[in-house]
Amino acid sequence: MNKVLEIHKRLKGKIEICPKIKVTKENLGLIYTPGVVEANREIAKNPASSFEYTGRGNNVAIITDGSRTLGVGDSIPEASLPVMEGKALFLKTLAGVNAYPLCLNTKSKEEIIRTIEILSPNFSAFNLEDVRAPKSLEIMEELKEKDLILFHDDEQGVAIVVLAALLNALKVVGKKLNQVKICIGGAGAAGYGIFKILNYIGLRDLIVFDSKGIIFKSRDGDNKYLKEIAESTNKENLRGGKKEAINKSDVFIGVTGIGNLLDKTDVKLMKEKPIIFAISNPSPEILSEEIKKATKNYIFATGRSDFENQINNIIVFPGVFRGLLDFRKKMDLFLEFKIAKAVASLIKKPNAKNIIPGPFDKRLLKTIVACIRRY
Amino acid sequence: MNKVLEIHKRLKGKIEICPKIKVTKENLGLIYTPGVVEANREIAKNPASSFEYTGRGNNVAIITDGSRTLGVGDSIPEASLPVMEGKALFLKTLAGVNAYPLCLNTKSKEEIIRTIEILSPNFSAFNLEDVRAPKSLEIMEELKEKDLILFHDDEQGVAIVVLAALLNALKVVGKKLNQVKICIGGAGAAGYGIFKILNYIGLRDLIVFDSKGIIFKSRDGDNKYLKEIAESTNKENLRGGKKEAINKSDVFIGVTGIGNLLDKTDVKLMKEKPIIFAISNPSPEILSEEIKKATKNYIFATGRSDFENQINNIIVFPGVFRGLLDFRKKMDLFLEFKIAKAVASLIKKPNAKNIIPGPFDKRLLKTIVACIRRY
Repeated sequence: MNKVLEIHKRLKGKIEICPKIKVTKENLGLIYTPGVVEANREIAKNPASSFEYTGRGNNVAIITDGSRTLGVGDSIPEASLPVMEGKALFLKTLAGVNAYPLCLNTKSKEEIIRTIEILSPNFSAFNLEDVRAPKSLEIMEELKEKDLILFHDDEQGVAIVVLAALLNALKVVGKKLNQVKICIGGAGAAGYGIFKILNYIGLRDLIVFDSKGIIFKSRDGDNKYLKEIAESTNKENLRGGKKEAINKSDVFIGVTGIGNLLDKTDVKLMKEKPIIFAISNPSPEILSEEIKKATKNYIFATGRSDFENQINNIIVFPGVFRGLLDFRKKMDLFLEFKIAKAVASLIKKPNAKNIIPGPFDKRLLKTIVACIRRY
Repeated sequence: MNKVLEIHKRLKGKIEICPKIKVTKENLGLIYTPGVVEANREIAKNPASSFEYTGRGNNVAIITDGSRTLGVGDSIPEASLPVMEGKALFLKTLAGVNAYPLCLNTKSKEEIIRTIEILSPNFSAFNLEDVRAPKSLEIMEELKEKDLILFHDDEQGVAIVVLAALLNALKVVGKKLNQVKICIGGAGAAGYGIFKILNYIGLRDLIVFDSKGIIFKSRDGDNKYLKEIAESTNKENLRGGKKEAINKSDVFIGVTGIGNLLDKTDVKLMKEKPIIFAISNPSPEILSEEIKKATKNYIFATGRSDFENQINNIIVFPGVFRGLLDFRKKMDLFLEFKIAKAVASLIKKPNAKNIIPGPFDKRLLKTIVACIRRY
């Protein structure tokens, strides 16, 4: 048996429920019947006091339907559990948040939304995770007006980390944000999230392609999110595939989910000193060995924890939830931008091998929480 | 502020999520991306392996809708959280089970059932708790045929503990099970569960009353569970209220939810050496001070942890879940009976002050688990 399965089999779960108090004959009547009814009564009178008298204030639900399970794609919800437990593990280890992995046995958007509402009394916030787009984007949109704190890690988390890494990568290659052409490969939740934040900060030289090729205005069969991308990107209204898209780009950001999508001929189409973020997991769109065949002067990052420059939402989601819970704030594009800038600034002297803090950088938590507090 | 609120405010939750492994740079790639996809793939191929590679095998969801919240009755789901966290605390402390309190923001039977199905990929078993009858009984019935392990603590847990205590109480007063008349006050989930187990073991001299009085055949407006009670109890087809019901009873079992329902005049209607289980929480149907005004020779038990003879499902639910999870068995009346007998037998020499083991009796877990293993 390989090492991954061995460790999972030995652990039987990466997290567990732990008592916060030792039960004794003396306190049983206080934390359970009959005394506990006084806490029930207080909360019945004033629902908001559930944040005071229970764990709710520090509880997050990690919600998925398994429709975009890491490494397996559209799968059964159970198949997502190892990843969701990992997320919960990090949320506690890195940010002290109690996260409950909840893989839902439904693919219905309406049922996912309703389940989140039904579960809301137990939690302060929800993390939507590994749900196929556009369903995931629709869920976020429909829940936006509700009194819920939501974070869509695949969309918002990735966008924050990509922008942070991009800010530093541009410094290293000496290019300016508003002068570069950026090509985004993939238009799922991550691609959409990256487009949104780059568009929000005013970048207009963007081009996005997906499995059907370059996204352009009036392309047939596109959903509203792809149409929104078309409206604000590809100003020359180009058509074509990845080669036409990547041509003359300064930056490639890959969130296609397709390993080895690019080769050296694609890199050669890019401008000099290309920035290549191949962040699909577990297989990046390209590896540095291949890039080297095209150019020596480049910046490369992936989403993997076993390579340098890890562009992975693990860098931000612990701090984001700590901050959202502590200050009961909602996430938006301006806050994404503030956090990205703050995370980037943690690297004082960026270089090709160091454009983004690692997930264990202890300054991350404080930095991100401070952004949210000040917002 | 009183002591109960103080302890709840200080704790901010009686349970928390804890890491089962220390995250390091070295193992990050095994428990998270990229390695974790191997566990995802295994589970996608073979869903049952989710019990091997994740915490699912030891996870229980505690489900309520807050419609019968301890001390507050039909309330908002949040108001149940302090009790549900207490249950989860005991499940871990006493039986090593990871229980997730999930108070649902819906009172709809259909939505509760559907939510349980939707949440099933994360759990081995569900504990239905503090849901108003007959809704709770209907939920149990409708989910019975599904591939789910369910326990209805208010119905099945209470029934087991009541029967265990009754077996020992009868020994103390020197009466035989098949010769006593038993009066059950209350016909909600607990009353129904107690009726079911007593009827299952062959007792026929039962009488049950609820807020509308004695339950009799063809009483107007009764639901199917009350009709089922009417079919097998009250063989003389008596009418009347609590006094007519309790008259000439050897045993009174109170699960009415009404504190101080009985007084000495009611006790005087009972046969000599009465057995009185006043197990409504937090206020019992009668206290021993009142009973003493009617007779010196009696057996008294409540559901409270601050009195002797605690008839509370806390005595069995930790062991029950440990056993159900370990052997993936479903609960039924025969198993309830076996567990009740085994729990009763832990008291070698019962006396009026000692008819049931306390919740901290370390033999309980092993005894109950052994019953389930052998079943």
